[in-house]
Amino acid sequence: MHALGNNYIYVSTFDTKLPNVGLADLSRVVSDVRHGIGADGLILIQPSTVADVGMRIFNADGSEAESCGNGLRCVAKYAYENRLVVESQFSIETKGGIVQANVQVLPNGLAGMITIDMGVPKFGPESIVYTGHDTDGDDVVIEVDGIRYVGSVVNIGNPHWVTVVDDVDDEFVRRVGPKVESDEVFPERINVEFVSVLNPKEIDFRVYERGSGVTFACGTGACASVAALIRKGFVGDRVTVHLLGGDLEIEQSKDGRILMTGEAVTVADGNFHWPA
Amino acid sequence: MHALGNNYIYVSTFDTKLPNVGLADLSRVVSDVRHGIGADGLILIQPSTVADVGMRIFNADGSEAESCGNGLRCVAKYAYENRLVVESQFSIETKGGIVQANVQVLPNGLAGMITIDMGVPKFGPESIVYTGHDTDGDDVVIEVDGIRYVGSVVNIGNPHWVTVVDDVDDEFVRRVGPKVESDEVFPERINVEFVSVLNPKEIDFRVYERGSGVTFACGTGACASVAALIRKGFVGDRVTVHLLGGDLEIEQSKDGRILMTGEAVTVADGNFHWPA
Repeated sequence: MHALGNNYIYVSTFDTKLPNVGLADLSRVVSDVRHGIGADGLILIQPSTVADVGMRIFNADGSEAESCGNGLRCVAKYAYENRLVVESQFSIETKGGIVQANVQVLPNGLAGMITIDMGVPKFGPESIVYTGHDTDGDDVVIEVDGIRYVGSVVNIGNPHWVTVVDDVDDEFVRRVGPKVESDEVFPERINVEFVSVLNPKEIDFRVYERGSGVTFACGTGACASVAALIRKGFVGDRVTVHLLGGDLEIEQSKDGRILMTGEAVTVADGNFHWPA
Repeated sequence: MHALGNNYIYVSTFDTKLPNVGLADLSRVVSDVRHGIGADGLILIQPSTVADVGMRIFNADGSEAESCGNGLRCVAKYAYENRLVVESQFSIETKGGIVQANVQVLPNGLAGMITIDMGVPKFGPESIVYTGHDTDGDDVVIEVDGIRYVGSVVNIGNPHWVTVVDDVDDEFVRRVGPKVESDEVFPERINVEFVSVLNPKEIDFRVYERGSGVTFACGTGACASVAALIRKGFVGDRVTVHLLGGDLEIEQSKDGRILMTGEAVTVADGNFHWPA
């Protein structure tokens, strides 16, 4: 399945027996486009004791991630369409916490647009693992090639550093993104977002994802960015985010929760043949 | 399926209804790893009036190719295991001609190593579309950045230019390959092979594939290279070719036919959901 071009192999352990290998290896093998299927990683949909359904996310390099906004929408679509849940509103457990999903049901019974309640984000360097001292309220300054960049720190299940730019420029993202992502003040590294405010209801967005680099879309990054911009008063409480892979609608509820609405697409389904 | 990491989406039109779109579009959509499955292209396995089974190959950009050695082995495996053919030896029609396949049947009934009889290659510039004049027998000289490179021209269903180097060097392949591939003397462009003779039974191999660039493996390129090296007396009539993606065994029969033996691997099978 993919959401805005962010593509994972989704396996439900409700009804599928996994090969007897480590999950990191499994993710590496299925994600390899030459010898496997080809994906950004592997997402397991599994029973949960604390929510209606659980998920685990592994990147293509085998590392495990806490959460993934695009992945959550696909898990919600899968769970609803495959009747792993009964209602169109249900909870999903991730390593980053429990989130609520709301599936818009189409006349044909399939899932349409999907809203994920990402919860109330935490702000500032104390909300993440940060070992530096160059801060200003929620903001952290990172110096790259002698230039000081200011970014807001947001934790929305995973850590983000959001910086406002005049124009989102891909060359700039590729140059500055990796240096911020692995700056020594972030020992667990960080997701890096570059946002440009077009008007109070619309922003342009680029991301350098932790461990993945420049990607088409990062749902948690879009949520973290809108949350940071609302807090600074740059945008209203309902924003359309233009990502490379398409659009997301991000809304902040009165009690500070971030709601993300967007697509989820089934590409293909079938059986993987574990290499002999 | 993949063969030495050369991966295509294989669709049998014996039993699958294709969506009502052009085949070029279909190949582009399924080959896109972000929104489709992800592959080097699409291969259709279809009925033939002149052979036991037919195939058509589309690259990821939608263009159609004449033939593909790695694809032929996968088609042979698919046709045998799915009982599209009765015997383990059968013929396959391609746009580049008819070839013979021989499937080594494993004790479990599945296909093991697969041999493709690529037929008798044609040699020299007159066997392909060539508009230049700088030739020496079968060889054609191409000047790149002021240096003259000599390569043997071989047509084995598709056109090849094979040059012998001391060591296969990836940087060199990436620099010189594309310039030879699209030199003006090859108006239909050409596959470019760089080979290094380790001993009379073993060669190192790199390829710059027409329209695809540096790839892990090119079956027809390995065959063309060994044919050219045998003709020059550099190797014997049975050679192990080390490609980036793995090994191929290439043999020349007494009547000049080139036999290629190698693996074919099923990665996954299932249903593609045509985008709404």
